[in-house]
Amino acid sequence: MSFNSFGRLFRVTTWGESHGLAIGCVIDGCPPGIRLSEKDIQPALDRRKPGGSRFVTQRKESDKVKILSGIYEGVTTGTPLSLIIENEDQRSKDYSDIEKKFRPGHADFTYWVKYKWRDPRGGGRSSARETAMRVAAGAVARKTLEHILPSPLIVKGALIQIGTKKISRKRWDWQETSRNPFFCPDAKTAKDWAVYLDSIRKEGSSIGAIIEICAEGVPPGLGAPIYSKLDADLAGAMMSINAVKGVEVGSGFASASIRGERFADEMRKGKAANSQQPIFLKNNAGGILGGISTGQPIIVRFAVKPTSSILSALKTINEAGENTTIRTKGRHDPCVGIRAVPVGEAMMYLVLADHLLLHRAQMGGDNPLYS
Amino acid sequence: MSFNSFGRLFRVTTWGESHGLAIGCVIDGCPPGIRLSEKDIQPALDRRKPGGSRFVTQRKESDKVKILSGIYEGVTTGTPLSLIIENEDQRSKDYSDIEKKFRPGHADFTYWVKYKWRDPRGGGRSSARETAMRVAAGAVARKTLEHILPSPLIVKGALIQIGTKKISRKRWDWQETSRNPFFCPDAKTAKDWAVYLDSIRKEGSSIGAIIEICAEGVPPGLGAPIYSKLDADLAGAMMSINAVKGVEVGSGFASASIRGERFADEMRKGKAANSQQPIFLKNNAGGILGGISTGQPIIVRFAVKPTSSILSALKTINEAGENTTIRTKGRHDPCVGIRAVPVGEAMMYLVLADHLLLHRAQMGGDNPLYS
Amino acid sequence: MSFNSFGRLFRVTTWGESHGLAIGCVIDGCPPGIRLSEKDIQPALDRRKPGGSRFVTQRKESDKVKILSGIYEGVTTGTPLSLIIENEDQRSKDYSDIEKKFRPGHADFTYWVKYKWRDPRGGGRSSARETAMRVAAGAVARKTLEHILPSPLIVKGALIQIGTKKISRKRWDWQETSRNPFFCPDAKTAKDWAVYLDSIRKEGSSIGAIIEICAEGVPPGLGAPIYSKLDADLAGAMMSINAVKGVEVGSGFASASIRGERFADEMRKGKAANSQQPIFLKNNAGGILGGISTGQPIIVRFAVKPTSSILSALKTINEAGENTTIRTKGRHDPCVGIRAVPVGEAMMYLVLADHLLLHRAQMGGDNPLYS
Amino acid sequence: MSFNSFGRLFRVTTWGESHGLAIGCVIDGCPPGIRLSEKDIQPALDRRKPGGSRFVTQRKESDKVKILSGIYEGVTTGTPLSLIIENEDQRSKDYSDIEKKFRPGHADFTYWVKYKWRDPRGGGRSSARETAMRVAAGAVARKTLEHILPSPLIVKGALIQIGTKKISRKRWDWQETSRNPFFCPDAKTAKDWAVYLDSIRKEGSSIGAIIEICAEGVPPGLGAPIYSKLDADLAGAMMSINAVKGVEVGSGFASASIRGERFADEMRKGKAANSQQPIFLKNNAGGILGGISTGQPIIVRFAVKPTSSILSALKTINEAGENTTIRTKGRHDPCVGIRAVPVGEAMMYLVLADHLLLHRAQMGGDNPLYS
Repeated sequence: MSFNSFGRLFRVTTWGESHGLAIGCVIDGCPPGIRLSEKDIQPALDRRKPGGSRFVTQRKESDKVKILSGIYEGVTTGTPLSLIIENEDQRSKDYSDIEKKFRPGHADFTYWVKYKWRDPRGGGRSSARETAMRVAAGAVARKTLEHILPSPLIVKGALIQIGTKKISRKRWDWQETSRNPFFCPDAKTAKDWAVYLDSIRKEGSSIGAIIEICAEGVPPGLGAPIYSKLDADLAGAMMSINAVKGVEVGSGFASASIRGERFADEMRKGKAANSQQPIFLKNNAGGILGGISTGQPIIVRFAVKPTSSILSALKTINEAGENTTIRTKGRHDPCVGIRAVPVGEAMMYLVLADHLLLHRAQMGGDNPLYS
Repeated sequence: MSFNSFGRLFRVTTWGESHGLAIGCVIDGCPPGIRLSEKDIQPALDRRKPGGSRFVTQRKESDKVKILSGIYEGVTTGTPLSLIIENEDQRSKDYSDIEKKFRPGHADFTYWVKYKWRDPRGGGRSSARETAMRVAAGAVARKTLEHILPSPLIVKGALIQIGTKKISRKRWDWQETSRNPFFCPDAKTAKDWAVYLDSIRKEGSSIGAIIEICAEGVPPGLGAPIYSKLDADLAGAMMSINAVKGVEVGSGFASASIRGERFADEMRKGKAANSQQPIFLKNNAGGILGGISTGQPIIVRFAVKPTSSILSALKTINEAGENTTIRTKGRHDPCVGIRAVPVGEAMMYLVLADHLLLHRAQMGGDNPLYS
Repeated sequence: MSFNSFGRLFRVTTWGESHGLAIGCVIDGCPPGIRLSEKDIQPALDRRKPGGSRFVTQRKESDKVKILSGIYEGVTTGTPLSLIIENEDQRSKDYSDIEKKFRPGHADFTYWVKYKWRDPRGGGRSSARETAMRVAAGAVARKTLEHILPSPLIVKGALIQIGTKKISRKRWDWQETSRNPFFCPDAKTAKDWAVYLDSIRKEGSSIGAIIEICAEGVPPGLGAPIYSKLDADLAGAMMSINAVKGVEVGSGFASASIRGERFADEMRKGKAANSQQPIFLKNNAGGILGGISTGQPIIVRFAVKPTSSILSALKTINEAGENTTIRTKGRHDPCVGIRAVPVGEAMMYLVLADHLLLHRAQMGGDNPLYS
Repeated sequence: MSFNSFGRLFRVTTWGESHGLAIGCVIDGCPPGIRLSEKDIQPALDRRKPGGSRFVTQRKESDKVKILSGIYEGVTTGTPLSLIIENEDQRSKDYSDIEKKFRPGHADFTYWVKYKWRDPRGGGRSSARETAMRVAAGAVARKTLEHILPSPLIVKGALIQIGTKKISRKRWDWQETSRNPFFCPDAKTAKDWAVYLDSIRKEGSSIGAIIEICAEGVPPGLGAPIYSKLDADLAGAMMSINAVKGVEVGSGFASASIRGERFADEMRKGKAANSQQPIFLKNNAGGILGGISTGQPIIVRFAVKPTSSILSALKTINEAGENTTIRTKGRHDPCVGIRAVPVGEAMMYLVLADHLLLHRAQMGGDNPLYS
């Protein structure tokens, strides 16, 4: 069932609300023998941390993660890992002006109509704060993949569009993603975005974005038909991130417009004599065929809608069902898509780690994809 | 685990290969007391049936479904429903020219590299033939929803784009979808498509498409955070359909370009005095907020790539890893997107039925969404 | 959820009613590359078959199993195996005298009160006929274990008590279990049972029994804490068999009476120089410690109650809630415990196969228990 | 998968080691709207607490539970409950004399052989300390049952045998279970046990026990065939408790010796005119038929082996595979069966709460068992 669990064999259960005492997760199924400490997790969390630039929420959280179980003498034991981050910024903000109203585009209304109960403190469980634990768990998934696979598997994410402003693929440089506050792979576009987002921010408005996640070094054979397809799992994983409205793999929606002979990723004999890995002449498939990895980079993109908490007065109703208007003041992300980049990377790591364990179960082998 | 099962509480397990003796599924979790016979399932299967027009595969299958268990005196008993369709067209086609080669864009290579074993008969398990059982199970899900909900929930699908040719939303007429062989809601565009697809077909080529699925009458409150979000489940469900490369909800990828104040689906007081259902002034959300239904129509679109089996000679390798070329002769869909329409409808029914049972579990009530 | 599925990674879903058209199962998760045909399954089914002796139900069923999917050229492909047995003996028996009454000790009442609906034909889904598919699936699990493990793992079952008549452990001879109609390992006791059961049968009465299942050759390290313990899974598996009222492992209930120093299975250095396998001086643990196998034989016993369908008139109520009496005529097992022996063996195979795949997922390796 | 999760819809995931920083659990699926605080959980924990009498381990733990999430203004919100207990007694005991040796009867050997890694601190994850979280979660399950069901459902446990010393059923008085340190329902036997266990304790020995758990007020219709049978789930649940070697329901193993006409729980018309609930003249079934509750009290018994940590020198091997001997000094339970009583009660609550949600999913209704 698992409303709050993700994964089958590498299984993560998250808990905690935006303004509760703490947030945390339990990771069950992590293999034993992996050297792991908070230091392996913190860097990923720091990439996602609020308050990192003026373009993201100004909430103050150091997001220091603590491992409470599952480690003995610095190494995983195969028992569940319990991770916790204490919420520092629980300031008893005055929610009185919004707590009886539903913010359009926010989960306020749907939580209330479903549960007949509602936690107004920063959105409670529907807050993107939950994604901090995805990032923490993703770092453990990454360590697990590194532990099992003999050669590097690297997941990288980039913001490729804000509003209508797209990056140039010709200028794509992965190094750039760590040099600007947008995870933008194109230095020139990053500068344009800074100006654009400043204006959005000052107007108390918000804007959507598109993120691209790339997994390199995924060997062929990962994934499983029919209802555990790698792309189906990735689609579910990315769509479960707050504010995501679309997911595509490889050529994605553009595939509709392409004819078969042009779409086909033709194959040539691989270089290594004994390698199972052919060379593909294109990657319209985005690294996945029939739900199983081809050995090419896995390419996933997802679209994030604009933040629903904005300064403009919007028509809405209150809990009594009466017409009213609402304006959301306070700290907020003008573009939640920015912080979705490390979250998307984490979800990719989680899906791949889960599938690697699944593959070992059915096919055997320590590194069953390298045979 | 369930490589071949879908759903949590309304759980469908499919089995069978394209050219095996039969295909089938087991539906577990269907409530008792529902009047059900093959007549409730056959019409949906007939909509998807191969050989229905010159625009889809010419394979001959009557696709007659039989219920083997779970019914007593015409009513479901709460025990598992076993559904079966015998494969009629198992002609021992000569696969010798392709069976050692990998068709680019097809699951041939990935199944082989994963399982070290391969069923060349029509793609075996990776064939879209499996989707017949999704359609059959979807019909049972539909009956289940009708049995539980007091007012109609209707799922409708349409093909909205073939290649670069899009329908006109102004001319949208749901009635049209049953009048042309494309499930096209726009009579004029359907005519253009007929000409266009004839040329594609004659050239032995193929083309992609975009499908839109709409669920009307879904009450607010269906779905569940965080990892059982309705949109995440729908994304996984649609992406699991053969050849799908992208899924979006509501405004989808276009959301990235929209500012917050324009994106927000503002709300007004609903008409019924005691109704929980407000009026939304737009539906950019596609009927889902925070993973839970809003009561607006749920709108999902997905993109289907062009069929990989085409007449053109394509560069590829064989099982020995040598360079070669391949051409796929014989009957094939010039546009697999057409038959994906009833499959998409079925997946929508399956996700909604599963969530309705999930909702009953946590919230209670016979029709827990109407309180 | 899976009301009708068993196992996590080696997952079996059964369907079908006692007097429906057929019964069957789908096995999902079976590794590819296993040579498998109906001939591997039929012998196990023949051991359980009704009508085998005068001491079991006289229903006539040849129980011929057919594999409908998942095999190509005699080898498993990794796709789901669909198994089916047609019900031959569906004679339209007159149930009118019992169909509105509840047989004491039978699931009649509980199915009716739960589902408000009831299938009187031979007990419908609650009939032990369902266990035929467990036996079929167990044979596939056995083949899977043989395929993966380098040395033999053998499961054997025996009936060790009927009524108050127990076998003598001193006379225990596994060979005997195939020489008498009781799976009795003690030739002398088997003769006594024949006389005893004849009298029970002629009186239209029934009697309970105790079964012992032994798995030899299980390597140490199989199983998993905390909620996937091997003994917990076995307890659930055996208790799910029709009419079972108790399960114990190793010394079982007698453990309560034993002091720690006498209970402890002391350990000595194993014979093979590099073996992980110590010698245990006793086996009170029944081969499992902390939910994980020790390498000793796994010993499980379960108790079966007397068949509830008997000739004696019993006080009961009818569906209208009125007092009445009931006598059950017709063919029935005087001791259902007999046919529970192959079912218990099958459940042991299923649990072990599932745990072997689980172990591979977390620990890696082709034969991860032999390192 | 869920090595460390229990339940399907009322799902508990526990974490933490005996001598780690803390232990905890996450409860997912708890319905919203239940008034809940630490005060509802602490009494159950206090019943199980170590150091409560001289007959249980002298470890000092206050076992104060803290709820970290899932509650807003004193009421559950439907989001996951995170519960935590800090370990106070983590004294860096000297394990050097035992850490390289395997205690016979303990999970030392099996954890080491499985994970190639071992946490010697008090048994790590295999310690019964984990059961504190079962008790905490069980208290939440109890509140959930009370919230949903209109009439009281009460679970009670008793120790009924220590060594060969059994209680007298004639003297059974539930009130007594809270008046002696053994949860013994028979005052006279409790006195005998005190003398007996004192001698066991002084000799540094240990002894097994049998526990009986009774659930009163369970309405008929709870549970589900075939692989979610109430008794199968209870058997798995109880067998998953540390040191348990056998589980039985109703007449249990004694059922083997009883003839059908004597075993049958005959039925008479219930008192309430419109009640579904008949009167049963006996309860050999232990309240469950066909895996579904009958409305009679549910009776489960389980046997606990003697503690493996004892003072006597026992033959064993060390991690190097060499012969040696071991004696376990320090604080230990002479009879772990005593503290298993509240754990067994908790498992009963957990299984029933899970099944109540399952039943609502399939059958609908707020209190679907009272129709």
